[in-house]
Amino acid sequence: MGAGTFHPATTLRALGPDAWNAAFVQPSRRPSDGRYGENPNRLQHYYQFQVILKPSPDDLIDLYLGSLDAIGIDRARHDIRFVEDDWESPTLGAWGLGWEVWCDGMEVTQFTYFQQVAGYDCTPVAGELTYGLERLAMYVQGVENVYDLAYNSSGVSYGDVFKKNEQQFSAYNFEHANTERLFQHFKDVSEECRALVAADLPLPAYDQAIKASHIFNLLNARGVISVAERQAYIGRVRDLVKAVADCQMAKII
Amino acid sequence: MGAGTFHPATTLRALGPDAWNAAFVQPSRRPSDGRYGENPNRLQHYYQFQVILKPSPDDLIDLYLGSLDAIGIDRARHDIRFVEDDWESPTLGAWGLGWEVWCDGMEVTQFTYFQQVAGYDCTPVAGELTYGLERLAMYVQGVENVYDLAYNSSGVSYGDVFKKNEQQFSAYNFEHANTERLFQHFKDVSEECRALVAADLPLPAYDQAIKASHIFNLLNARGVISVAERQAYIGRVRDLVKAVADCQMAKII
Repeated sequence: MGAGTFHPATTLRALGPDAWNAAFVQPSRRPSDGRYGENPNRLQHYYQFQVILKPSPDDLIDLYLGSLDAIGIDRARHDIRFVEDDWESPTLGAWGLGWEVWCDGMEVTQFTYFQQVAGYDCTPVAGELTYGLERLAMYVQGVENVYDLAYNSSGVSYGDVFKKNEQQFSAYNFEHANTERLFQHFKDVSEECRALVAADLPLPAYDQAIKASHIFNLLNARGVISVAERQAYIGRVRDLVKAVADCQMAKII
Repeated sequence: MGAGTFHPATTLRALGPDAWNAAFVQPSRRPSDGRYGENPNRLQHYYQFQVILKPSPDDLIDLYLGSLDAIGIDRARHDIRFVEDDWESPTLGAWGLGWEVWCDGMEVTQFTYFQQVAGYDCTPVAGELTYGLERLAMYVQGVENVYDLAYNSSGVSYGDVFKKNEQQFSAYNFEHANTERLFQHFKDVSEECRALVAADLPLPAYDQAIKASHIFNLLNARGVISVAERQAYIGRVRDLVKAVADCQMAKII
């Protein structure tokens, strides 16, 4: 998936009235963001620390600032700013009131109060924090290039673990992914999603919707989707997510 | 994937002479093991804690026993046995000398010294530990049913988080997964894997081999692969992994 927001523990649990608090590391893939391992802070695969608190606690901003203290971001030495940036995900049919949190001018967290998911109003409102782990680690370690991050205390760097992966997956995403098969698989997972919704299985259906979203992102990286088609594809993914959410809400209500 | 052993940080890093030490939580899927949420200790999705130490340290058994102490398994109260069980993965073309570690008669860890991966001799030999996290948590918490495990200290159980997932994915794996598309996708990912090997991209190629393995497991759960075909499918996955390993070894040597 492209972000922790897509995880069913965020999207699907944001629906309905039940309280839900979760925090997890989400490996995330954004094919178009690959730079063949040559950009110091842009990756096609990276890690988010994803937090959802529902209902959103009144002191969420203080809790967040406390979490920066806890991981060793000294607020006396770094310029922490909340930059208003209401969040929207057209593929999830979701939006929220939010802020980018900047550390010395670079975004390190997205801070959002969910208003809608899959077209449903969020009652209660959930607070979502999405931490960019590599960027935060770069501040904590005082490192300018993500590949120079210490991955452990024995001399293994982030680059030792991930650089070849970035190089090879950038080549896959931009040059080698077979687009004919991707177009076919987009259709296939969309049909599978709808069949599973019809069978009243929202969780496996949602898995297929996540695949559809990733296949769309790959097609986009391969440069084979025109500007006009792009909106149609986003609409198709949103319709799948909406169908899953309808199925899920029917179980909740 | 079906197990942490499949992760490239295990399989591919076991190849070649370089030292490598890694530990990570691996979400694992074994479609045939689903029981619709009705079996107290059998799941189609569960967590492994996967450790690989290469070269294998001389005191690996002591390190392992120390890790049980660290997580609160009291060896004075539990019967810990090493049961010889040399490990083999026909799909990975891998085998090793090993033991199942039993706690009060139930397997909680697989302990293996890798001898071969993808047909290559492992030099140096890597030690692999695969901890079954749910089962270990059940011993630590003194719980008989996995769904009764406390997932946090606020009253949320493992069942609250995962029971619906087990019910719905069991129905998907055994009844609803579209087998015609799965057969086609097995061919598709196999072709994609071989094309990526030809393009000298072993890591994206390996991703496709993992997909092939999971699709085979789904077809198996759907009951549409005969005993005779089963061996042929396993052989096809092994050939893909072997092709990836050849490509990877050509880079290492």
